[in-house]
Amino acid sequence: MRIGLLTSGGDAPGMNACIRAVVRGGLYYGMEIFGIRQGYEGLINGDFVQMGTASVADIIHRGGTILQTARSAAFMTDEGIKRGYEQLQKHKIDALVVIGGDGTLTGGERLHSLTGMRVFGLPGTIDNDLAYTDFTIGFDTSVNTVLSAIGNIRDTSSSHGRTTIVEVMGRQCGDIALHAGLAGGAETILIPEKSYDLDDIVKKLQAGRDRGKRHSIIIKAEGVDISSEKLAETLTERMEGAEVKVVILGYIQRGGSPTARDRILASRTGVRCVELIKEGVSNAAVGIKGDTVVDYPLAVALAMEKDSHLEYQRICDILL
Amino acid sequence: MRIGLLTSGGDAPGMNACIRAVVRGGLYYGMEIFGIRQGYEGLINGDFVQMGTASVADIIHRGGTILQTARSAAFMTDEGIKRGYEQLQKHKIDALVVIGGDGTLTGGERLHSLTGMRVFGLPGTIDNDLAYTDFTIGFDTSVNTVLSAIGNIRDTSSSHGRTTIVEVMGRQCGDIALHAGLAGGAETILIPEKSYDLDDIVKKLQAGRDRGKRHSIIIKAEGVDISSEKLAETLTERMEGAEVKVVILGYIQRGGSPTARDRILASRTGVRCVELIKEGVSNAAVGIKGDTVVDYPLAVALAMEKDSHLEYQRICDILL
Amino acid sequence: MRIGLLTSGGDAPGMNACIRAVVRGGLYYGMEIFGIRQGYEGLINGDFVQMGTASVADIIHRGGTILQTARSAAFMTDEGIKRGYEQLQKHKIDALVVIGGDGTLTGGERLHSLTGMRVFGLPGTIDNDLAYTDFTIGFDTSVNTVLSAIGNIRDTSSSHGRTTIVEVMGRQCGDIALHAGLAGGAETILIPEKSYDLDDIVKKLQAGRDRGKRHSIIIKAEGVDISSEKLAETLTERMEGAEVKVVILGYIQRGGSPTARDRILASRTGVRCVELIKEGVSNAAVGIKGDTVVDYPLAVALAMEKDSHLEYQRICDILL
Amino acid sequence: MRIGLLTSGGDAPGMNACIRAVVRGGLYYGMEIFGIRQGYEGLINGDFVQMGTASVADIIHRGGTILQTARSAAFMTDEGIKRGYEQLQKHKIDALVVIGGDGTLTGGERLHSLTGMRVFGLPGTIDNDLAYTDFTIGFDTSVNTVLSAIGNIRDTSSSHGRTTIVEVMGRQCGDIALHAGLAGGAETILIPEKSYDLDDIVKKLQAGRDRGKRHSIIIKAEGVDISSEKLAETLTERMEGAEVKVVILGYIQRGGSPTARDRILASRTGVRCVELIKEGVSNAAVGIKGDTVVDYPLAVALAMEKDSHLEYQRICDILL
Repeated sequence: MRIGLLTSGGDAPGMNACIRAVVRGGLYYGMEIFGIRQGYEGLINGDFVQMGTASVADIIHRGGTILQTARSAAFMTDEGIKRGYEQLQKHKIDALVVIGGDGTLTGGERLHSLTGMRVFGLPGTIDNDLAYTDFTIGFDTSVNTVLSAIGNIRDTSSSHGRTTIVEVMGRQCGDIALHAGLAGGAETILIPEKSYDLDDIVKKLQAGRDRGKRHSIIIKAEGVDISSEKLAETLTERMEGAEVKVVILGYIQRGGSPTARDRILASRTGVRCVELIKEGVSNAAVGIKGDTVVDYPLAVALAMEKDSHLEYQRICDILL
Repeated sequence: MRIGLLTSGGDAPGMNACIRAVVRGGLYYGMEIFGIRQGYEGLINGDFVQMGTASVADIIHRGGTILQTARSAAFMTDEGIKRGYEQLQKHKIDALVVIGGDGTLTGGERLHSLTGMRVFGLPGTIDNDLAYTDFTIGFDTSVNTVLSAIGNIRDTSSSHGRTTIVEVMGRQCGDIALHAGLAGGAETILIPEKSYDLDDIVKKLQAGRDRGKRHSIIIKAEGVDISSEKLAETLTERMEGAEVKVVILGYIQRGGSPTARDRILASRTGVRCVELIKEGVSNAAVGIKGDTVVDYPLAVALAMEKDSHLEYQRICDILL
Repeated sequence: MRIGLLTSGGDAPGMNACIRAVVRGGLYYGMEIFGIRQGYEGLINGDFVQMGTASVADIIHRGGTILQTARSAAFMTDEGIKRGYEQLQKHKIDALVVIGGDGTLTGGERLHSLTGMRVFGLPGTIDNDLAYTDFTIGFDTSVNTVLSAIGNIRDTSSSHGRTTIVEVMGRQCGDIALHAGLAGGAETILIPEKSYDLDDIVKKLQAGRDRGKRHSIIIKAEGVDISSEKLAETLTERMEGAEVKVVILGYIQRGGSPTARDRILASRTGVRCVELIKEGVSNAAVGIKGDTVVDYPLAVALAMEKDSHLEYQRICDILL
Repeated sequence: MRIGLLTSGGDAPGMNACIRAVVRGGLYYGMEIFGIRQGYEGLINGDFVQMGTASVADIIHRGGTILQTARSAAFMTDEGIKRGYEQLQKHKIDALVVIGGDGTLTGGERLHSLTGMRVFGLPGTIDNDLAYTDFTIGFDTSVNTVLSAIGNIRDTSSSHGRTTIVEVMGRQCGDIALHAGLAGGAETILIPEKSYDLDDIVKKLQAGRDRGKRHSIIIKAEGVDISSEKLAETLTERMEGAEVKVVILGYIQRGGSPTARDRILASRTGVRCVELIKEGVSNAAVGIKGDTVVDYPLAVALAMEKDSHLEYQRICDILL
């Protein structure tokens, strides 16, 4: 039994732990594992390399992905998918494991439905925007990275008595902002899933200033439909004497040594994936629900929609 | 409505975030909050202090507990419990919230059944040994602290080509060892819940050495019934030329700034606790099951037993 | 003997450790210490508060400054300086200690020469741009913060095979870029003190790509006279197929818990400052040369010029 | 020109950055570099491996040493030294670079005086006990590791109201204890270089308790002539009701990613070492004095004695 394995889309901390789990799990069950470098682009180009235990020694703690990743315009077309399939056939791959986010799993699902190739998806992305799984691999680490940055920013914000808008990643998902904002004690959290009211924001900041509060932090997810600079301008205009700065955290959110939870999530889902392959399942997206590892057919998983954050919203209203 | 609030037993990172959630949650619902310093000992001594928003400003990121903690031999007796109850009556407390581990919640349950006092328990301990909740406040942080220590130890272990036994906390629960061991890629994990075989351990270490592996890390929970020094001696005797060192991580596992998960768990359970009080519930232990906040009557919660670790054991066999 | 103490300009990690050293040092020698909040602005407004041991308990590890800071346009004028002097006289201050960067020490020197007030400067800024001292308080911490960010960025850079330009602070001084770049193994370092050659940069990056190197990191100090975005554009145009991203680290460089070196530098210079006051010196800027605490009259210190970085430049050429 | 390179003695963070500097520096000047694995033991066994740029890619941030280390009883004898020399001759090595502590440099000096081999020493040890250099590679990192542990311990100490004795490394040198104690705000610091008075310690702790202080931290260097457990017993006996715990930090102090300063110190001394070899110098120990790289003949360097810590002692008396 031969497994192909690739990482695609934006990288995420824990991808290496996941690669390790698939490789060691596969070897444990007597399978051969072929790593495919640079995601779907590498698949099309036939960049395959056989992997053994040594290939994954000492990577569990490393951010990034040893198999690298790349965007593949070609694989977004059926033509490109067929070329990828030919490479898989050429290398006699029985099942392909793809680690990535929504785009990666969608490409994998398309490969499966077009060609019948057995495809398995593992949720590797910091955005936590895969509805079928409560948490994605990389999310916990990025939230803690943002938390650490908030700590630094709070030191300087309170020293200067300013309002700082911290923009975080997540594409159209506000989870990083929500979790880091709650954990970091931010005064305001703006996420795409909930419309904001500029008047409310100003009122809240103003009330804080009237109470003697000299600083505050606004966490804003990148998907919110106002740019951070524009928001800063608007708040500065509306609040006399206020100093509003913007920090766009950027790519530091993607890297770093994965936390314990991300490594364990990567390990549990990676092993389950190998076991599903062994059991003869044709395709699946593996994730976690609560603290239980779950799996669904790819198409089913990709069609799900994320719950709203009612409980978190309530907590925000109470604690912030 | 008046809430009393105390922290007891071993301290845990996230206790302060929990205190903050109970205080701000209580104030949000128009209640008065009285902090009780030094756990049950302070309860007996009447060490009450009213708390406001300012009392919990800037503590969400801090390890330890601003209300401090102490062991109370007196509160382990019905006599002591009655004296504690008198203090609660004297201060017109309607409901008492206790944050701590098994001993703390047990004392709280006894107070409730003896006197009818409304008592609510929040799971504050690094040991993760409260069966009614999948995770306790402080566990995630301590696992990551151990993970960081393992990283340091691995640097020196591999430089010197030695075997290091790392002893971690957990009382009679092996969760810290299990999670940190899996996440840290330890070669062997010893936990109280699973009997160990010295011959197997030696065989595994020997096999590694034969393969050219110059070092390894054994994670051992403190509850395992062989001392780390004794284990080191035994392994040294049985493996010619091996250098076996012991590191007992100790109290660094208790402190440190809580991770995002611990702060969020503390906030969610703290707010739910206040809402249960508001709803008129007579007593409860609040925790988390999967990713859902749950609660049970104290006696029910304390009678539960932890699941075995079948899935984690299987992953250990495959990945380590 | 009464000491006035303020922090001004951009905040820096270690300012609190410095405040602690001045306060405890002053108390040790039987002096009274008055903290002045919000820098020179607070001085003009008479925002004085007496400080004792308790005022500085538990702050040695905290970033930011408990005395806060503010920009004061007023204090840049002789008129404003005179008003500040009046406040000092009103509060019977014998000597004023100012912790900050070039602007802060310059304002202090002006206060001294205009009024005869005894003024002492301590070097609190992350920029390391005070020529009279080899290191400023906050520099070591910010370099390590940048180093940590470089680590995260390298994970994602190498996963994606891109070139990332990391812009760091320093105003017109390239030290943060130089130290973090060297320590982080950056491929190219751009600092204001050394002219850059775009052709050379492109040549170097191209050579790396030809050797199979898929990624690289360019550290650019904010004072270099080309914007990071413009540099990214230019490199993208000149290198076919290259993906060049920009990360502007911003305010996270100002905060965070100070490193051991910054706390010790803050403590040594703070204590020396108090001892100079005790000795009757009229004014001084205290700093460090090599590993020895030194001091100079303010005007002399402010007139010095920083050495060039010949040794560091040579090491860059060899190791990068 | 061929350089041999080894690491010996206890490992230290920054050794890898030093290896990188010697290798890249040597290659820059057209030399060949041969790494020798497992210190002097590997030298005797002829465990040589040629090194290129790729050998040292991606190691600057890693703790430990890729060349490993081992204790060599054989190399402590002239016989063993001669065998090592034969291997150097066999591999046509012109100059040997040894990275390690006192024992390592002493062995290297003996090799030089016995055989005339050109030998160069770089100061790799966390203990900071090489008198000829103000700082050793690894010291800054270990101090910061201890500082972080002190932070965790302080959380739990103050929650429980206890006194904690934290034992740190350093062999017979108290620098780690002194620097970490000062930077961490410890209440008492015990180092081998200064005799302690148990009565004074008790008096100080008692005074704190009388003032309402519920906890304290005592940093004790391992070289102090009383065991930490014995000290804990004694203090417990003498202070009624006090709870005194012991934390022996152990091997976590040896590992971890090196700080910026350690990487830069490693790089500067490593490059200077190569330049001395190029210049034809017969032997040298390279270190740092203040912020200037210095070098001395090995025998001269090893005969020096460390200054006393008068300034640091004075600061301790004032600030603690």
